[in-house]
Amino acid sequence: MSSSLGKIFKLTTFGESHGVAIGGVIDGCPSGFKIDLKQVQNVLNKRRPGNNKVSSKRIEYDSVNFLSGLFEGKTLGSPIAFYIKNKDVKSKDYSAIKNTYRPSHADYTYQKKYGIRDYRGGGRSSARDTANWVVAGAIASQILYKMGITIYSYVTSIGEVRLEKEYHELNLDTIFNNDVRCPSIKDAENMISLIEECKNTGDSLGGCINTVIKGVPVGLGEPVFDKLSASISRAIMSINACKGIEFGSGFSAAFSRGSIQNDLFLFDGNSVSTATNNSGGIQGGISNGQDICFSASFKPPSSISVPQKTITKDNQYTKISITGRHDPCVVPRAVPIVQSLSAIVILDNFLMNKTTKISDL
Amino acid sequence: MSSSLGKIFKLTTFGESHGVAIGGVIDGCPSGFKIDLKQVQNVLNKRRPGNNKVSSKRIEYDSVNFLSGLFEGKTLGSPIAFYIKNKDVKSKDYSAIKNTYRPSHADYTYQKKYGIRDYRGGGRSSARDTANWVVAGAIASQILYKMGITIYSYVTSIGEVRLEKEYHELNLDTIFNNDVRCPSIKDAENMISLIEECKNTGDSLGGCINTVIKGVPVGLGEPVFDKLSASISRAIMSINACKGIEFGSGFSAAFSRGSIQNDLFLFDGNSVSTATNNSGGIQGGISNGQDICFSASFKPPSSISVPQKTITKDNQYTKISITGRHDPCVVPRAVPIVQSLSAIVILDNFLMNKTTKISDL
Amino acid sequence: MSSSLGKIFKLTTFGESHGVAIGGVIDGCPSGFKIDLKQVQNVLNKRRPGNNKVSSKRIEYDSVNFLSGLFEGKTLGSPIAFYIKNKDVKSKDYSAIKNTYRPSHADYTYQKKYGIRDYRGGGRSSARDTANWVVAGAIASQILYKMGITIYSYVTSIGEVRLEKEYHELNLDTIFNNDVRCPSIKDAENMISLIEECKNTGDSLGGCINTVIKGVPVGLGEPVFDKLSASISRAIMSINACKGIEFGSGFSAAFSRGSIQNDLFLFDGNSVSTATNNSGGIQGGISNGQDICFSASFKPPSSISVPQKTITKDNQYTKISITGRHDPCVVPRAVPIVQSLSAIVILDNFLMNKTTKISDL
Amino acid sequence: MSSSLGKIFKLTTFGESHGVAIGGVIDGCPSGFKIDLKQVQNVLNKRRPGNNKVSSKRIEYDSVNFLSGLFEGKTLGSPIAFYIKNKDVKSKDYSAIKNTYRPSHADYTYQKKYGIRDYRGGGRSSARDTANWVVAGAIASQILYKMGITIYSYVTSIGEVRLEKEYHELNLDTIFNNDVRCPSIKDAENMISLIEECKNTGDSLGGCINTVIKGVPVGLGEPVFDKLSASISRAIMSINACKGIEFGSGFSAAFSRGSIQNDLFLFDGNSVSTATNNSGGIQGGISNGQDICFSASFKPPSSISVPQKTITKDNQYTKISITGRHDPCVVPRAVPIVQSLSAIVILDNFLMNKTTKISDL
Repeated sequence: MSSSLGKIFKLTTFGESHGVAIGGVIDGCPSGFKIDLKQVQNVLNKRRPGNNKVSSKRIEYDSVNFLSGLFEGKTLGSPIAFYIKNKDVKSKDYSAIKNTYRPSHADYTYQKKYGIRDYRGGGRSSARDTANWVVAGAIASQILYKMGITIYSYVTSIGEVRLEKEYHELNLDTIFNNDVRCPSIKDAENMISLIEECKNTGDSLGGCINTVIKGVPVGLGEPVFDKLSASISRAIMSINACKGIEFGSGFSAAFSRGSIQNDLFLFDGNSVSTATNNSGGIQGGISNGQDICFSASFKPPSSISVPQKTITKDNQYTKISITGRHDPCVVPRAVPIVQSLSAIVILDNFLMNKTTKISDL
Repeated sequence: MSSSLGKIFKLTTFGESHGVAIGGVIDGCPSGFKIDLKQVQNVLNKRRPGNNKVSSKRIEYDSVNFLSGLFEGKTLGSPIAFYIKNKDVKSKDYSAIKNTYRPSHADYTYQKKYGIRDYRGGGRSSARDTANWVVAGAIASQILYKMGITIYSYVTSIGEVRLEKEYHELNLDTIFNNDVRCPSIKDAENMISLIEECKNTGDSLGGCINTVIKGVPVGLGEPVFDKLSASISRAIMSINACKGIEFGSGFSAAFSRGSIQNDLFLFDGNSVSTATNNSGGIQGGISNGQDICFSASFKPPSSISVPQKTITKDNQYTKISITGRHDPCVVPRAVPIVQSLSAIVILDNFLMNKTTKISDL
Repeated sequence: MSSSLGKIFKLTTFGESHGVAIGGVIDGCPSGFKIDLKQVQNVLNKRRPGNNKVSSKRIEYDSVNFLSGLFEGKTLGSPIAFYIKNKDVKSKDYSAIKNTYRPSHADYTYQKKYGIRDYRGGGRSSARDTANWVVAGAIASQILYKMGITIYSYVTSIGEVRLEKEYHELNLDTIFNNDVRCPSIKDAENMISLIEECKNTGDSLGGCINTVIKGVPVGLGEPVFDKLSASISRAIMSINACKGIEFGSGFSAAFSRGSIQNDLFLFDGNSVSTATNNSGGIQGGISNGQDICFSASFKPPSSISVPQKTITKDNQYTKISITGRHDPCVVPRAVPIVQSLSAIVILDNFLMNKTTKISDL
Repeated sequence: MSSSLGKIFKLTTFGESHGVAIGGVIDGCPSGFKIDLKQVQNVLNKRRPGNNKVSSKRIEYDSVNFLSGLFEGKTLGSPIAFYIKNKDVKSKDYSAIKNTYRPSHADYTYQKKYGIRDYRGGGRSSARDTANWVVAGAIASQILYKMGITIYSYVTSIGEVRLEKEYHELNLDTIFNNDVRCPSIKDAENMISLIEECKNTGDSLGGCINTVIKGVPVGLGEPVFDKLSASISRAIMSINACKGIEFGSGFSAAFSRGSIQNDLFLFDGNSVSTATNNSGGIQGGISNGQDICFSASFKPPSSISVPQKTITKDNQYTKISITGRHDPCVVPRAVPIVQSLSAIVILDNFLMNKTTKISDL
């Protein structure tokens, strides 16, 4: 099922949404690093549903428990295993969908691929697994922070409400000051209003998330098939509702000219930089020392209470109205997920890069 | 350097643009398949520069030579190795850039990452490696075709000229009837005009490519971190100028509602389908039997003859005007590349899926 | 740390000997298989220390708990995660070795490699991790059994006491009838006497284990670098005290002639076999349908109560007498471990082989 | 077919014995290293058949050609591709075996696994692929040499003629002074006589090879499933006629006591060492700074001119006398192969180890 991400710093996850627990194993974490476990839990709490008015009422404390890999607070270099119990499971909420395929969910594809599925809460296909990604990503972020690398992700749109400012014009330290993780109070308020409005109609909303990674040294990324942009794309496109990703000037570059898109080099007497950053910090698949910038698009959640026509396992037509505690918009909760996956990819490439030059051995 | 793609059907490539040769090794190709080598060369010719008026004048015959893995025309199950000689190399064209970093090229990042670079024609960072991808992809396509799977890629925009029709309204068999690989004669003519116009100004153009994969059975793709969409994204984002990718309704889904985006199931008495295909044929990371649809964005080539300010290896400012035989727009040539990478990913997942169910063993 | 085994059926383990728990994640287990969990626990009990008079008195119930991947008793195709609590931990037994390197243990190498080590019970270097291997191997064995494949491992020597009979002369169903897992009562009794005698002197004993795998179809094993023999060797050499492995006629073949070693083909009207099996069931790295046979050698445990001179972390000489509850001979307990690793490797190759021939797709 | 070895320094090979060429791609070789290509060819010549009186008369110059990855004599960090033409192919020598399975060869297993085989010279199953391993190993050896690591392999037995001395008593610089690569003139002469004698009878001989790796720093090897001993075993067991491997005191340890086997630590005021080296330089899967020592066993070649009964593809009995130019003993030629594989594994682990400690990043 290929539940692993990373080559050196490697996360393997497990767990069905309504099984005993979810969790993961991080193999290849460098030894001797003091992890701030409270901080890991803090990041995890940011992903958790039910922690504010824009998300579902399902309360999960998502308390992470570590089983191995740590000794006297430090990483041993051995696998770090952890799990999160599935506490607030109300299986009866899902019994109606046992034999029914919810539109645009993974019910149908899992059933056909595996011949069996855990229909309770979406089973393995649930976004609940992303909690595991956040645990690993929070650890990776702490290591990266020590290396001078910081990752910021924030919401740039919810439905048709868009944040128009560039990241240079925003205070990225204020991202988590509001429930939609948008570092612009006015836009955040509009987004929150839209979500509440949408919730009342039983419908759902999509949105976009920008990511800016600061402090990445020149040289990360393996060119050809493991370009830094390709590795990040693979990771981010693993997020359940993710429909697209673009780097730097992205899709708009397609409608532009080379003379406009090229990032001219600057030298200030000390260091090389570029006048613009249409490349999004990556050239030829390798980080160029500028901020790494990308944007990802998320579709509206498929779970809506608006009644929908669908079919059963026996190909009979039926109607479904998904009435559980579902988020009308998952984008704010996806912010720490995007951040976490980015951290895993960047750290993995940071480690990989240590073996590149003969002069560094 | 991670020059491999695929887990079971696995391509490893090599070669610098102006070295002796480029080539690759395909490990894990199923045995007993009769490859149509002429057809492989035909696809390769579609990628080749200099074969029409919209691309560079550099003539490369890109004649592929096979060294192993075939016996009496059939695959042995052993690695298929091949190479393509670098015939028309004019190294003097590039001597000017030995110590100069071309803006938005990989010169700077390669130099910093490796401490050395083959500056001739971009070396390993050149898009020349994509010829190897096409060889492997052409073989994968033939196997997929036997399995009932066909891949269509075509240009949907060059600069500001856009093809507005959906793929259902187009005749996908006419894609290669014109030099820009756009299956709409009128739009193709406008694109060609724009390219010629741009060529005269020494500037370059970007564009977008759509891909439609027909006949994919339900069940391909490993959920969690090897979602079919994630694997395709990783592959496509490996293409040198690729800046973004989106599946199904893609970025536009972010501005929509769940009630609009959800793909309702249909059953016609024989088979299951969906009323819409906003999911782009992938749900929960697994193919759902509908057409797989995605779009990729390509930036304008960085090599322009318009003079640009840049720096040397010694951080001195200089001016550069890239005067070699460069394409003003690579998008048409990228069509067989996108198709080929898609074929490799789909075949790899097709093979992987053979081990999924106990009842299939 | 590379705590994974297998390419398709893939086990990743975690856990320090005296941490909270040990455990593992099996990714890629085929879906729809009903696992006999009681039987898994039964095999695990065979590995457990303290369950008979020849092993240590440390009582661990090694009760395995599953966290995911199963639904209504069947495999989901998703990762199967499990853990085993570390119940009977007496950390004070080990405090003496905090700053002392036990001879021929991994204390010194772990400390130098990682700069930190969990000295309690050997931490990650403890053979305790093999319990995880047995869980995965027991599951793999059940699947293989359904495919007609059975694996027998048994003790052929303890110290100088050797079982001289070939496996054809033994009843392999009686292997677990005695505490040393030797299917010859007389030899078993001699082995048990030797172990008890050795225990009283505070010393330890090595031994050898034979493995016979019946029912393997022709064609398993990927030639070149993943020969079936190479994959089995890698797995078996992972067992903590393993010092050597040989297939078929093994080391003795080196002193023989081709005319004696060659296995002549036989055809009985129905099926092909070989007159002898010096190849150990593997030719050119691929199973040939005959019994797969190999033998592995295990050194005496390093933990002995006989006083030994050694050094501390500060390079000071000291004396050590390892007085904990240690096995004087681990070979009988290694029997289910060898069996389990073999099962993982064979199943992994069985699955891999499903993608080989175009005619099988 | 899994034709790759290594995780970071990764070799992928290709080629059938009597196809156009054999060759390989080395991905992940550190950049900026000046390779002595003449020295690579020298090592390759040591593996070549027909270069002395104890091997076959088949003359292959095995001239290696590099296609990529090198620039001005230095490694670029990009894949190093190379090929060796198959010059002296006499296909008629092999036509007799087109439909006949040679005893103890891979003819039968390849035919059954793949449904097709290149019967000319054994095709992919031929030991000819080992020439590729030597090319990669020779490069790895040069890099290791710069890191202070040297690998010595030498013959310790041919048939019943055994070299009884330990390696401390031998001058390892004289290994290649004779045709059997045994650093003891008297034993070498006896071995040569035995080979000549055996050749006249149309039979073949096995033998053993010892390997000693000096200068390995403490800390190489990933414990659990990628123990240094496990990785070396996997590589060495890939050699075509290899039947067994043992480390340090190996199989003999099984018949010994812990008090005898344990390697006591010594400290001479400067560095830690061990009084004995029964561990073969590896403890807990990690190098301990002592010489790494292992021995491998090779069966007599299956190709003998002594007539043998066998079967055809149609299961008909027939007789075969293999009359081509085959070595009566391949052990001396295997010496540079063992050395080369060891070098690849050690370098790969050396590179992997660079990412272990947080304090080294």
